[in-house]
Amino acid sequence: MSKTDSNVNKLLKNEITFGVIGGGVIGGGWVARFLLMGFDVNVFDTDPQAQRKIKQMLENARRSMPGLFEYLLPEEGQLTFCSTIRDAVSSANWICESIPERLALKQSVYDEIQAHCSEDAIIASSTSGFKPSELQANSSRPEQIIVAHPFNPVYLIPLVELVGNIKTTERAAVVISQLGMHPLTVRKEIDAHIADRLLEAVWREGLWLVNDGIATTQEIDDAIRYGFGLRWAQMGMFETYRIAGGESGMAHFIQQFGPALEWPWTKLMNVPELTDELVDKIASQSDEQSGQYSIKELEHIRDDNLVAMMRALKLKNWGAGNLLNKIDHELEAKSVEPQTTLTQRASVLTVSRVVPSSWIDFNGHMNDSHYAEVFSKASDIILRRLGADPEYVARGYSYFTVDMKIDYINECHAGEQVFAFTTIKLAKGKKLDLYHEMKNVQGTVCATGSQFLLHVDLNSRKSCPPLEPVASALEGLD
Amino acid sequence: MSKTDSNVNKLLKNEITFGVIGGGVIGGGWVARFLLMGFDVNVFDTDPQAQRKIKQMLENARRSMPGLFEYLLPEEGQLTFCSTIRDAVSSANWICESIPERLALKQSVYDEIQAHCSEDAIIASSTSGFKPSELQANSSRPEQIIVAHPFNPVYLIPLVELVGNIKTTERAAVVISQLGMHPLTVRKEIDAHIADRLLEAVWREGLWLVNDGIATTQEIDDAIRYGFGLRWAQMGMFETYRIAGGESGMAHFIQQFGPALEWPWTKLMNVPELTDELVDKIASQSDEQSGQYSIKELEHIRDDNLVAMMRALKLKNWGAGNLLNKIDHELEAKSVEPQTTLTQRASVLTVSRVVPSSWIDFNGHMNDSHYAEVFSKASDIILRRLGADPEYVARGYSYFTVDMKIDYINECHAGEQVFAFTTIKLAKGKKLDLYHEMKNVQGTVCATGSQFLLHVDLNSRKSCPPLEPVASALEGLD
Repeated sequence: MSKTDSNVNKLLKNEITFGVIGGGVIGGGWVARFLLMGFDVNVFDTDPQAQRKIKQMLENARRSMPGLFEYLLPEEGQLTFCSTIRDAVSSANWICESIPERLALKQSVYDEIQAHCSEDAIIASSTSGFKPSELQANSSRPEQIIVAHPFNPVYLIPLVELVGNIKTTERAAVVISQLGMHPLTVRKEIDAHIADRLLEAVWREGLWLVNDGIATTQEIDDAIRYGFGLRWAQMGMFETYRIAGGESGMAHFIQQFGPALEWPWTKLMNVPELTDELVDKIASQSDEQSGQYSIKELEHIRDDNLVAMMRALKLKNWGAGNLLNKIDHELEAKSVEPQTTLTQRASVLTVSRVVPSSWIDFNGHMNDSHYAEVFSKASDIILRRLGADPEYVARGYSYFTVDMKIDYINECHAGEQVFAFTTIKLAKGKKLDLYHEMKNVQGTVCATGSQFLLHVDLNSRKSCPPLEPVASALEGLD
Repeated sequence: MSKTDSNVNKLLKNEITFGVIGGGVIGGGWVARFLLMGFDVNVFDTDPQAQRKIKQMLENARRSMPGLFEYLLPEEGQLTFCSTIRDAVSSANWICESIPERLALKQSVYDEIQAHCSEDAIIASSTSGFKPSELQANSSRPEQIIVAHPFNPVYLIPLVELVGNIKTTERAAVVISQLGMHPLTVRKEIDAHIADRLLEAVWREGLWLVNDGIATTQEIDDAIRYGFGLRWAQMGMFETYRIAGGESGMAHFIQQFGPALEWPWTKLMNVPELTDELVDKIASQSDEQSGQYSIKELEHIRDDNLVAMMRALKLKNWGAGNLLNKIDHELEAKSVEPQTTLTQRASVLTVSRVVPSSWIDFNGHMNDSHYAEVFSKASDIILRRLGADPEYVARGYSYFTVDMKIDYINECHAGEQVFAFTTIKLAKGKKLDLYHEMKNVQGTVCATGSQFLLHVDLNSRKSCPPLEPVASALEGLD
């Protein structure tokens, strides 16, 4: 806990310490999410490769996750590898169990965890299938054990299904939100919770289609990603169908679509046998589909796509984009200099963020147009601090940019931290003249921007003098 | 066919005329896609509201679809409402049947279509469930009738499942590609084709979850859109799981995941009965979830999200983004002035495009940073025409922007056509000085940009004189 003096940059209370038992694809993903959100993590894993694998996962997370946000994440937490379960859990208040899906093994690990952890700690299993009552069967403190089921890659996908004791899941939901994730509390325990039931239904149907030679794995994936996958990334199934039903509504839609449930479409509901032949068929089709990429390449492509799509969803404040905007809002409130007094001719920090992978162009660096985006954002911050906030805009007044001159001095790269410092050069009547400097973490100036704005009436779209509270804020600048 | 003289702006051969029978949500979506891709359409629908509904659909399509592309789409085709099936199909070479899902009705409509249409025409049914053999049962020219199953909204979602006679579906695939869509030919006919089998499996499972009080419609939608929906919009199911399997591969993954197919997760495979109670439960949960938005508002939100996400997928040239980039490439090749000789001090058209909805900010107009994006794109076009194309960049040489000055003169709005005209002010040694003007369709100048670039060695990241073929291209400018 050596970083208490630097916690000005912490998003959230950092008194949570995470203990992670099992650092595979899911456990390692949790580790990356915990660390990048500023929390300390103790890990126990019997796999001698665990350290290497977790560090790879962390590299993936560092290159993608910070680009989701318009502000810097808190300072990274401290990662400690432990040689016993006891060491990993004794100081932890959230214990993440991500070991293989064998019930007896999980139960025996809970025994050992509970022998050493605090009674207040939450023991959260990443299990995809087991119900809390099964996990708790032999436990003396069953209410402490819940399910917190995440989705791969855990450092990007926001969903976590929470199942178990209501008081514990309520506390867990607060932590999940602090991790920038979406807690979905399942109302009653059920095998495979919610999402994996849906996934399993599709998986079963997909296996039949491959088995029967109707489609290859590539063709099934294309049916998803060129089709309903695009719908489901932003609205789910019911909201999508609500639109399809039109003004006549959801009940009408069900009456139209419902009969299909009785049609022969359902004839393939029995379970396909996973013969060696079927497994080979799928594996070789998958090789043909994706074999030209290594797993690492596929991970990078997937992560860059997820970042770009989730950033796209921020525009309409929708789904995962709504969640990201909320986190931005918290990050902004906690950002370093909100207390600095605005004055003319003194620069203030307006932007502190990471360059998202989606800003990189064919030259391998941040595209020139995104420098304009950073400065545009910097001026938004100044305007908001002058009182020209969303409420003021809703009243019908705002500022429009009249001209902007950018000098490009140094290149910026994906994942790099960049900062903008903005000076109010002139603020007189309807005129506002800003000067921005963009710096990297070494303090090197990467670009400068001179931006001239005019205050406007949004109804007439013509310039006009600022109203209160902006007028007073401008007067108070000197 | 009065527009043959203006077909310089046509993406593709416009000798295809579409006849559409049934202009509801799906038929109307097809109409919008056909028209916006530059083709003429004749529509027959018995619904007296059909004209109004199709015009609404066309409005939705016009405000969203053109923003998917970095170039203007071809000039819109001509829409004609016909009072008989005969009028709608006699001059058509693609007949789109989108009437209700009643087999006998469809068969009788094919009778009438085939009595009046060309033997070469393709009759493509939008049916979600029927197999071609069922549709063709009473037909004298069965090979002419195929399934071409699209997804709502048809003007944005690229997937079309093709099923039927192999020669006919091969011809159909060419047309579907010309519509900017992804043809997925199903290897054997099967009820509900591919995608709807998967959708139906999820729908069935979703109904059980609502019925049993495990989750509400909102919670199920959240499980999708905060979770696997994000994965499926860019990779499908098999490629996603391939990554989860890691370097040990797909067969390993199936061995891990496969046993779940035998677990109790599958116990709910029988069909839920759609009692009035269940229908009411879903309808009222859906009202609570989405009732604060009208269907029209939801359509706009959905369309804007789809445009922003699909544009995001262009960055990695992945899935739907790969398809859009291919279309851009075709549109660029067909754009108006590729033959214009580049000279110094004469402007050439470099950008002709529509402002996507995702470029609009809180002031209700195109954000200042996207003006920089348009000018950045304009300079890319000049560079490519000078020989500094992707191949040249791959050799290790490119141009970097040193400074850019933008003057903002007029506002631009979503869906508006904008054009950039670029003048080479100076091209001497490693220096390149460009001047851009961005105009709207009325010819009003919306912004000007002065951009100074230097030729660089991408290895040293330092400026250097241009190599061939750029050096000669620059010399040939005067």
